[in-house]
Amino acid sequence: MRIGVLTSGGDCPGLNAVIRSVVHRAVVDHGDEVIGFHDGWRGLLEGDHRPLDLESVAGILATGGTVLGSSRVRPEDLRGGVERAREHVAALGLDAVIPIGGEGTLKAARLLSDAGLPIVGVPKTIDNDIASTDVTFGFDTAVGVATEALDRLKTTAESHQRVLIVEVMGRHTGWIALQSGMAAGAHAIVVPERPFDMDELTAVVGKRFEAGKRFAIVVVAEGAKPRPGSMEFETGGTDVYGHERFAGVARQLAVELERRLDKEARPVILGHVQRGGTPTAYDRVLATRFGWHAVEAAHRGAFGMMTALRGTDITLVPLAEATERLKTVPAERYAEADCVL
Amino acid sequence: MRIGVLTSGGDCPGLNAVIRSVVHRAVVDHGDEVIGFHDGWRGLLEGDHRPLDLESVAGILATGGTVLGSSRVRPEDLRGGVERAREHVAALGLDAVIPIGGEGTLKAARLLSDAGLPIVGVPKTIDNDIASTDVTFGFDTAVGVATEALDRLKTTAESHQRVLIVEVMGRHTGWIALQSGMAAGAHAIVVPERPFDMDELTAVVGKRFEAGKRFAIVVVAEGAKPRPGSMEFETGGTDVYGHERFAGVARQLAVELERRLDKEARPVILGHVQRGGTPTAYDRVLATRFGWHAVEAAHRGAFGMMTALRGTDITLVPLAEATERLKTVPAERYAEADCVL
Amino acid sequence: MRIGVLTSGGDCPGLNAVIRSVVHRAVVDHGDEVIGFHDGWRGLLEGDHRPLDLESVAGILATGGTVLGSSRVRPEDLRGGVERAREHVAALGLDAVIPIGGEGTLKAARLLSDAGLPIVGVPKTIDNDIASTDVTFGFDTAVGVATEALDRLKTTAESHQRVLIVEVMGRHTGWIALQSGMAAGAHAIVVPERPFDMDELTAVVGKRFEAGKRFAIVVVAEGAKPRPGSMEFETGGTDVYGHERFAGVARQLAVELERRLDKEARPVILGHVQRGGTPTAYDRVLATRFGWHAVEAAHRGAFGMMTALRGTDITLVPLAEATERLKTVPAERYAEADCVL
Amino acid sequence: MRIGVLTSGGDCPGLNAVIRSVVHRAVVDHGDEVIGFHDGWRGLLEGDHRPLDLESVAGILATGGTVLGSSRVRPEDLRGGVERAREHVAALGLDAVIPIGGEGTLKAARLLSDAGLPIVGVPKTIDNDIASTDVTFGFDTAVGVATEALDRLKTTAESHQRVLIVEVMGRHTGWIALQSGMAAGAHAIVVPERPFDMDELTAVVGKRFEAGKRFAIVVVAEGAKPRPGSMEFETGGTDVYGHERFAGVARQLAVELERRLDKEARPVILGHVQRGGTPTAYDRVLATRFGWHAVEAAHRGAFGMMTALRGTDITLVPLAEATERLKTVPAERYAEADCVL
Repeated sequence: MRIGVLTSGGDCPGLNAVIRSVVHRAVVDHGDEVIGFHDGWRGLLEGDHRPLDLESVAGILATGGTVLGSSRVRPEDLRGGVERAREHVAALGLDAVIPIGGEGTLKAARLLSDAGLPIVGVPKTIDNDIASTDVTFGFDTAVGVATEALDRLKTTAESHQRVLIVEVMGRHTGWIALQSGMAAGAHAIVVPERPFDMDELTAVVGKRFEAGKRFAIVVVAEGAKPRPGSMEFETGGTDVYGHERFAGVARQLAVELERRLDKEARPVILGHVQRGGTPTAYDRVLATRFGWHAVEAAHRGAFGMMTALRGTDITLVPLAEATERLKTVPAERYAEADCVL
Repeated sequence: MRIGVLTSGGDCPGLNAVIRSVVHRAVVDHGDEVIGFHDGWRGLLEGDHRPLDLESVAGILATGGTVLGSSRVRPEDLRGGVERAREHVAALGLDAVIPIGGEGTLKAARLLSDAGLPIVGVPKTIDNDIASTDVTFGFDTAVGVATEALDRLKTTAESHQRVLIVEVMGRHTGWIALQSGMAAGAHAIVVPERPFDMDELTAVVGKRFEAGKRFAIVVVAEGAKPRPGSMEFETGGTDVYGHERFAGVARQLAVELERRLDKEARPVILGHVQRGGTPTAYDRVLATRFGWHAVEAAHRGAFGMMTALRGTDITLVPLAEATERLKTVPAERYAEADCVL
Repeated sequence: MRIGVLTSGGDCPGLNAVIRSVVHRAVVDHGDEVIGFHDGWRGLLEGDHRPLDLESVAGILATGGTVLGSSRVRPEDLRGGVERAREHVAALGLDAVIPIGGEGTLKAARLLSDAGLPIVGVPKTIDNDIASTDVTFGFDTAVGVATEALDRLKTTAESHQRVLIVEVMGRHTGWIALQSGMAAGAHAIVVPERPFDMDELTAVVGKRFEAGKRFAIVVVAEGAKPRPGSMEFETGGTDVYGHERFAGVARQLAVELERRLDKEARPVILGHVQRGGTPTAYDRVLATRFGWHAVEAAHRGAFGMMTALRGTDITLVPLAEATERLKTVPAERYAEADCVL
Repeated sequence: MRIGVLTSGGDCPGLNAVIRSVVHRAVVDHGDEVIGFHDGWRGLLEGDHRPLDLESVAGILATGGTVLGSSRVRPEDLRGGVERAREHVAALGLDAVIPIGGEGTLKAARLLSDAGLPIVGVPKTIDNDIASTDVTFGFDTAVGVATEALDRLKTTAESHQRVLIVEVMGRHTGWIALQSGMAAGAHAIVVPERPFDMDELTAVVGKRFEAGKRFAIVVVAEGAKPRPGSMEFETGGTDVYGHERFAGVARQLAVELERRLDKEARPVILGHVQRGGTPTAYDRVLATRFGWHAVEAAHRGAFGMMTALRGTDITLVPLAEATERLKTVPAERYAEADCVL
């Protein structure tokens, strides 16, 4: 068998572990050949690739980034390129293509699959917002990095007697905010799924000070927004890809909380550190298993599918189903964090 | 409601997070009173306890150990104490008792539950060997610590051109060995579930050297044993509790591999570092959720049950079912690690 | 002997280690009594304090923050309070006062010492800008946190083919930028001591891209400024204490580099994570030694002095000398980092 | 200029950072050529080497191990090889050779230097036992790893109500034991420089239990020995190189303390994890500076010298002086740790 693999979208700890696992399983156990496309879909569209043997994936299991490079792509660009993709797949004699990526990538994968190409997707997102899988690799690392930062920030907030508003990743979903906030014992957690009421948030934080506490930590997902009318809020608009721009919610919340509570409040924006660097053991194992099972799926001809974690098992789900909707934080999960408010 | 809580058995990262979560949920959200028994079952049998309010669990979320203390207990000791336990529960006016512990603790919990006491168990084990739950807190931390050690040992093994045999925890099951070995890219993983053939293991490691590699890492669970007749092997016997004593499998393997391969081989025994200290974010969240749901179960009168993770949900399973059998590494999971041999 | 101790100024990993060490040395080895003033100088001025025995410092060695609380104080406030400080010292029967703090605190300490109070200072700053000591505790932790972040950011910069401008602490000196930049292999390091020439910086980063590299990491101290005329630059003005306000140099640099290089450039502001949380082993040892030697100095009557590290020895230097000038990055140290440009 | 570089002796975090720094400084700033000898002195004796350009050292700054390989060599082997070394140096047209290694390596370096070869040494040891330099790279990482392990072990010792005897590296000197023991707040620190009295050690640990504490942590350097007559002690003898063999002091201490105190006591042997893996920021900076200054020394013709840290400066000291004696823990440093007993 000849298998092509590519990584697409933003950085995510575990990408290299998937690539390595695909190569190990395919080459060692099946005697396959593997090639890697450079810079995601661009490599497939332009036929830019290199062979991947065992040596080329040595030592990459624990490294961040992707040895294949990545790029963001707009679905419409890919739509125009289906024929070129098909030609390159044919010319290279590929029996399967394994794209590793997030929501956009999986939508593109479905497009190609619907057009008849032999695709097995591997989901990737630090945001944990892909439905049909319990979790994806990268998320545990992001939560770990955010939690470690929160652990550190707590002592400073206490020493300085401040409210710290810590902004973590999550444009559409609050998973990182929820998990890191629970893990670090944040005093309030604000997620995009539930527009916050500024009066209520002020009350929660204010109650801590009334109870004699000298600091508070609020974790807020970057995509969180106030309930309309709850406070003046400046949105960031949208960028050229139609993605919402950074609104600076932590900064705006800090100004507002400081004004309302008459306590020093400061924003901290964790930013890119959440999405790079060495993956946690959890993410390495999950990524390795995804790669292993993607190769198995290819050998079984289970195309148009995506690897997924369900409980402790790796299963396959249709790409169609996987990209239907975002996985948001449900009310009952958010309720579990109530106890830490 | 009045709730008693205790921690029993060996140290496990996340115990304090459960205690804190029980107190938060019970006191803040339900207006309950919570008392903590000292040193596990001993505290219940002797009525040694203290009240647990919010202040008494402040700052413990991320700490290792248990603020309540722990002890190991033999089931037969507890059997004789059922009446005393019942008396203390009655005298203290407890509506529920939440024991947090491993296999032995949960068996004891079942004993008391069968005797009519209002018990909700919370499973705990770094070994991940409790059936009926996908995973327990403590395991992710143990795997993380072992993986970090393996990451470090790799460069030394390479510089010194050695085989390192790294012994991780796991007397009866190989979960820590499997996950940390996969996460760190070990070249062989040896688990108790599958007695190893010394010839086969020698061949696997030897093949690496024949291929020009200069080192190898073997991860071995402490309870692993050779296939009978495969090599001379000295067992550790049993201790006063009937538990198997430490056989020193890594040390024995190192001697044997060095002899057979004529390469320097050294044992490294990670030991207790795997079971102490601050829990990972993953374990803190799981522990917090277990505590939250144990309180909910108590309020719903769901006694004789144990909290469990199934997929992304916390559910309840009968204590009877939970303690029936050990959860061992199944063949298909072990096969996934084959690619790294 | 009766000894008072206080912590003043911003959070700094190791404060608790000093407090603990003072108490251990004084109480255990000398049979002294120790009291702690709350919230820095405020506690001394208002006589707000508590006794510190062994139990009260148990378990704090590795924790961030300060169990005594802290506050920022303006020297002029303290000037008016010398008499009150003297009265409280007399009323409490203190033979020595050990203030732990940064430049401002040490200036205040000198003021009190000049007024005849028995002061032994302990220097503290994550910025490493106190002259007369090779280094202070807190700095190693700050550099470690920044380096770990840079390690993570590198893979993301590479995956996204971007220039990342990473802003680290350092209003007046570039020590954190220099050390973390060297440790992480940054491609340019910008410090306040040497106003940067925007053309030169653009050239350095641009050369990497010309050489076929796909990303660059620039580390910039928050207080860095361009050479006048080198680019338009908006300063942050000054706050109520006369301190310069945050100018957002990373953000301004990112905009300018993106414009000049036609490459995506993004700012990352590490912020408060650098100054909180558990100290490194290095900082714990240094802080412990400082505390030990401060007590010794008090017993020898060496007042008006400050503990200092010189090579591997802890020595005492006059407070007068210690607060004379900031320790800036000398040209030859900056030159050593040239190799990483 | 043409410069040869080699790494010799045991693994030590920072070796790759030195190699990279030598190449960066020499190639970029001086336009030199650099070659690397494989596997330490063996490469020089056998003329086994490869060119080192910028690409060949890309990405190695933060990695453990050595890209050049290493080997242990007996001085007498090298003695017979001086002529061969001289021939290879001449044949390769080398103007300088930079060996990076520990005590044995530096002695060998001196031998070659005395024979007229142009040598600039770079000291390396995780043990911190090289005189003439305040500290060497690798030590900070080793102390950090040991401290993190001790942090974890503390909670387990407490939960299990045990004495843990933690054995750290240090055959001849107790630096790692001293620093990690101070950093983690160990209750006793046992170093080779001061043979321990078993009665005294028992008393120190016993006093903790009498004071109501439930656990104790003893840190012991692997080379520590009891005062003669103080307890029965089995030494490990010597190996083929004349080095003392591992005596298992922690194991012997655990047995003896358990017997004397009637408390569970367990040995934990940290082993090789202390000497591998990614270096701390401190070690990366020190290693980078050593490499930079070694190249400068070569260009100034300062042969027969070794780089050294004195305070905050890198200086050069004669190899003769550097290898004269081991740097042991002086009594006054050990006394500073008394407060933690």
